[in-house]
Amino acid sequence: MFEFVAFLLMASFSTLPGFREFYPEDFAQRKHVFQIWRQVARRFAFREYDGPVLESLELFTAKSGPEIESQLFCFEDKGGRAVSLRPELTPSLARMVAARANGLKRPVKWFSIGDNFRYEKPQKGRLRCFTQLNVDILGESGPAAEVELIGLLIQTLLGFGLTEEDFYIRLSDRDLWLLYLELLGYEGEVALEILGVVDKWERLDTAKLLAHLSDIAGEGAAKLKASIDGFLALDSLEAVKACFASTGSGLSEQAAKRLKARLDDWSTVIEGIGAMGFGAFAKIDLSIVRGLAYYTGFVFEAFDRKNEFRALAGGGRYDELVEKMGGPEIPAVGFGMGDVVLMELLKARGKMPQFLDTLDCYVVLGGEEEKKTALSDIALLRQAGYSVEYPMKLPNFGKQFKAASAAGARFALVYGSEELAKDVVKIRNMADRSEQEVPRALLLEAVRELF
Amino acid sequence: MFEFVAFLLMASFSTLPGFREFYPEDFAQRKHVFQIWRQVARRFAFREYDGPVLESLELFTAKSGPEIESQLFCFEDKGGRAVSLRPELTPSLARMVAARANGLKRPVKWFSIGDNFRYEKPQKGRLRCFTQLNVDILGESGPAAEVELIGLLIQTLLGFGLTEEDFYIRLSDRDLWLLYLELLGYEGEVALEILGVVDKWERLDTAKLLAHLSDIAGEGAAKLKASIDGFLALDSLEAVKACFASTGSGLSEQAAKRLKARLDDWSTVIEGIGAMGFGAFAKIDLSIVRGLAYYTGFVFEAFDRKNEFRALAGGGRYDELVEKMGGPEIPAVGFGMGDVVLMELLKARGKMPQFLDTLDCYVVLGGEEEKKTALSDIALLRQAGYSVEYPMKLPNFGKQFKAASAAGARFALVYGSEELAKDVVKIRNMADRSEQEVPRALLLEAVRELF
Repeated sequence: MFEFVAFLLMASFSTLPGFREFYPEDFAQRKHVFQIWRQVARRFAFREYDGPVLESLELFTAKSGPEIESQLFCFEDKGGRAVSLRPELTPSLARMVAARANGLKRPVKWFSIGDNFRYEKPQKGRLRCFTQLNVDILGESGPAAEVELIGLLIQTLLGFGLTEEDFYIRLSDRDLWLLYLELLGYEGEVALEILGVVDKWERLDTAKLLAHLSDIAGEGAAKLKASIDGFLALDSLEAVKACFASTGSGLSEQAAKRLKARLDDWSTVIEGIGAMGFGAFAKIDLSIVRGLAYYTGFVFEAFDRKNEFRALAGGGRYDELVEKMGGPEIPAVGFGMGDVVLMELLKARGKMPQFLDTLDCYVVLGGEEEKKTALSDIALLRQAGYSVEYPMKLPNFGKQFKAASAAGARFALVYGSEELAKDVVKIRNMADRSEQEVPRALLLEAVRELF
Repeated sequence: MFEFVAFLLMASFSTLPGFREFYPEDFAQRKHVFQIWRQVARRFAFREYDGPVLESLELFTAKSGPEIESQLFCFEDKGGRAVSLRPELTPSLARMVAARANGLKRPVKWFSIGDNFRYEKPQKGRLRCFTQLNVDILGESGPAAEVELIGLLIQTLLGFGLTEEDFYIRLSDRDLWLLYLELLGYEGEVALEILGVVDKWERLDTAKLLAHLSDIAGEGAAKLKASIDGFLALDSLEAVKACFASTGSGLSEQAAKRLKARLDDWSTVIEGIGAMGFGAFAKIDLSIVRGLAYYTGFVFEAFDRKNEFRALAGGGRYDELVEKMGGPEIPAVGFGMGDVVLMELLKARGKMPQFLDTLDCYVVLGGEEEKKTALSDIALLRQAGYSVEYPMKLPNFGKQFKAASAAGARFALVYGSEELAKDVVKIRNMADRSEQEVPRALLLEAVRELF
């Protein structure tokens, strides 16, 4: 005990790169974000849950493949287990739903707010520890689930005071891509490889794209690139339909049926979002294919209109994941929204409120005797729900009133020797400096009338 | 992509020992606990902050010595840094305060709610990941800080509906112990070694205690043990004073002065807690010395009255820690309250409320056309703050009303073909089954009147 270590420079104790501390003024902003997230999720009748931040490593490698390990905070624990801080919540969610699949009322509408950890280069919009809102619907295979989720995503961003001018949703569909590629003659693994190239479309130059496509399509690379460019340019459901119609009848009967069903689902999603009044927020953008291995249908991302920031949110359908986690086949769709980019955008657009300290009552004390008397009233007021502060040391009245003001107090409760003698409390309204005296026995009642 | 791994048994994905999942019904209990914690802290005018859950390993070893490493989830990150999940928040807090020591208004009254991680054997009341409320006052050296903190601790437990019959606070003082041991002729490192034995007093039998004391005090062990037993039996401030008086005048003049000041501080704490109306909750119990290396004065713990559980909360003064973290000398006192033991106690005493799902409105839909119409009203109601649910699939009305009931809806909003034709909504009060029709344009107004 008391083994004092040598005096160490503060620098050696600094936070790790990509990790944050939240002083109260920062925490207030964070709390605001969580509050809106919770509020809107509750309005959409989603229920909050949480999973562990530390999990078996294989929970993540099983879902995303071993290549994810390079991005993980993974290690061997003292019991020799390969463990990892979670990079995302979805695998834990899939396990939880799988474990109780038969007992859960469907559709399962759940949300969670929690920390995720990724060992990536910290930069604008990307930290090593970030908090994410996860919202998922499980047990509903139809596009009604997408409508509800995209509606929630839009209404959440509206909840922060952002408008149509600030953000929009890019909507895409991996199924539609696979149907289109099938029409072009590419199926199975080859089609998935092409989607992998599409995922990098905006980042690579023409030469590189052609090189990638040549590896896959050989001589047909140039034609394939032109077809993909054409598909990427589609920006309305009508244009999509026209594209499929004009590309010809290369689809098998079964695929043609799938295409028809798929286009019906698209109509449902577009009309549903429109019916909610959010049509202006959604944009068909087939460049979104989302790299993650487990998406199976609609995929979508939220972006700021000026494209100054990374994606605000992203998600899609992952109908096969719960089964992969050992559960029954349960269709699922969900999205995640991180706090880092969101807070950057809110600040940039002037949508982050100023949070001022507020206090119901500040107790001004004449001396130690007065303090003893006041402590009982303070406990009573706090018990009744009021926030009450008093000085630990007892400077003069003037300083105490200044402290009351600095603390944002609405009322000062004055306990001086005079008040003590009369067994009263003087209540000063800090805004207009009006004062009244009330008998101590009636203090709680008087305060209740003031609020 | 789509690299399906072999089907894996669910068991291989289970949570790690000592870690928890929170299904929505469990999360509701957890949320209740956090809510009371936040509510009471706010009433006491504490401000919320947070630190990173992952820190440099040395932040913890510097504070508690290298022996703490065996209890840590520590590892080397991908950048070669020795890091650890935090076993407690206090070192991060001390660093944060140290870094801004000059800019912070004192006393600093801060609280935090966050996860801590310790690699210990999971058992009743002890998990490897637990959530802790931390409340600290920094910058106040006098016992007024202890009064405020112990008052907050008591009022927090009262906030859960626990009573005087359910819990109490054991109050002790490492300074008083050191003065007593000085009176007995033991000072410095030797006195601290004796305190180490006192920390184990209840767990060791007489023979073992004597053996330990012999190592320290040689022939004087039996006498020392009797003196300690006598000191441990003291249960009132009067008895403490009498003990010091009767043990004689072995104290140096300076120590006698310290003793007087110390007993004055004790009076302030006891009287302050009494003035708040909480005298019946506090008990002098000098067996509490708290093992942690950094406590310097008053120490206290909260226990259930029946002594069926581990400590509910514990804390004390740690005046030297901020300086150790590279900051200026700042006195500090704080406590931590974990969620695990608290929730066990609340459940055992019937103080954990049942949380039922509730919903403002459930929308009953006649068909897809009605749904399109309803979606716009649903978005409007949600925007106005109401929680609204509707079916994804469209079963018959009977099943939808059952779903409304199961969801705890207060009102059902019926959109049938008849209503659609008249451009009205039928509102059914789910409790008394009374119904009314309102024009769609007036729906929000009508709902506002109902709540």
